[in-house]
Amino acid sequence: MPAYALFYFNGRGRAEVLRMLFAMADVKYTDKRIEFNDWEKYKKDMPSLTVPVLDIDGKNKMPETMAIARFLAREFGLYGKTNMDMFRIDYICDCLYEIMHDYMRYFHEKDGRFRVSQTGTSGNANPNNMTVELHRCYMDTCRRVLPFLERTLESRNNGNQYFMGDQIMLCDVMCYAFLENSFNENQAMFTSYPKLMGLRTKVAAHPKISAYLKKRPTSNW
Amino acid sequence: MPAYALFYFNGRGRAEVLRMLFAMADVKYTDKRIEFNDWEKYKKDMPSLTVPVLDIDGKNKMPETMAIARFLAREFGLYGKTNMDMFRIDYICDCLYEIMHDYMRYFHEKDGRFRVSQTGTSGNANPNNMTVELHRCYMDTCRRVLPFLERTLESRNNGNQYFMGDQIMLCDVMCYAFLENSFNENQAMFTSYPKLMGLRTKVAAHPKISAYLKKRPTSNW
Repeated sequence: MPAYALFYFNGRGRAEVLRMLFAMADVKYTDKRIEFNDWEKYKKDMPSLTVPVLDIDGKNKMPETMAIARFLAREFGLYGKTNMDMFRIDYICDCLYEIMHDYMRYFHEKDGRFRVSQTGTSGNANPNNMTVELHRCYMDTCRRVLPFLERTLESRNNGNQYFMGDQIMLCDVMCYAFLENSFNENQAMFTSYPKLMGLRTKVAAHPKISAYLKKRPTSNW
Repeated sequence: MPAYALFYFNGRGRAEVLRMLFAMADVKYTDKRIEFNDWEKYKKDMPSLTVPVLDIDGKNKMPETMAIARFLAREFGLYGKTNMDMFRIDYICDCLYEIMHDYMRYFHEKDGRFRVSQTGTSGNANPNNMTVELHRCYMDTCRRVLPFLERTLESRNNGNQYFMGDQIMLCDVMCYAFLENSFNENQAMFTSYPKLMGLRTKVAAHPKISAYLKKRPTSNW
């Protein structure tokens, strides 16, 4: 087994799905959590100046959340067998990624650390307005994507098992991890998506995931 | 061979890479181009209320640009063989997607059709400011990602062939299609990335691609 190291900030954010995949497969890795104050020190060593990054055997750092997720899912047998299965898993993942990506843009703008807007530029948009706009953009994505995901889940086994049927796959783990901030922020929104909520409960009850969730560091994002 | 139909607007945008994959593989499909004026009529039939969408045999409409691209690339043998090959192809594609996604957000804001900002909401950011901010965000992504892609290309065969070596793959076609608007808008920026520019020239010279580029409808985005 290669020596894996995962670089990300000290939060769940984009990396939590990767940590959950390692947990599910019972594969050891170094969970390198970078504090925001130390980011400038690490940034220049990250291939595209951002995280998550996966390092394999200390030789090669590779970026991009979903490329890492897909690599691990293939490695751990969580990506389906036929091209049509992989297509279905991919579009479910990409829909969930749209929500997460828009959430993270909004979150970082509000939080102020990695703002889209920049006070003092010629644009000079009010950062508060930008937070409002990015939150609205994120909510639009939720309203557009979540009903489709609910129907997609329902289309197999009446939505009472996993997205692909009776086997847990990458897209199910993503449904837990990538909707976690959204769910914590606005539980009322999710009452319209009972099958997705049921799926998240099932994923959390998976023995390996459940053990991981109990022992993981707490963070508010 | 299944009956493929690709739904997108009457522009290159996010769908052009998919059209180029069909062209490379010499596979017939219906290129369904929706005029903006007709969008409301079509929108409700799209699974997540957006395009691109791929329809297979008129039975199942499936969304998400990159899920469609990966499905076609696997179908047409443009996705590598080993998990590490697919990882490399995936992170190159995801980097290019970051640029395209930020470009399209900026483009639609400027164009005014699918704005992120919304005049008259409580946020009420000045749309012109939003265009400036989204353009800056897009340029930040270019400056962060393009040097990494240039180095990645250079790491095999000195960057004089394709990203994976001597075989053209999904990521090379994406490098042509997803940088096309960026290149047209700001050619000066790309003088810093001669290997990427060389790769785009090589992709355009591929016999099937070259024939496609000559006969495709012209559009300004």
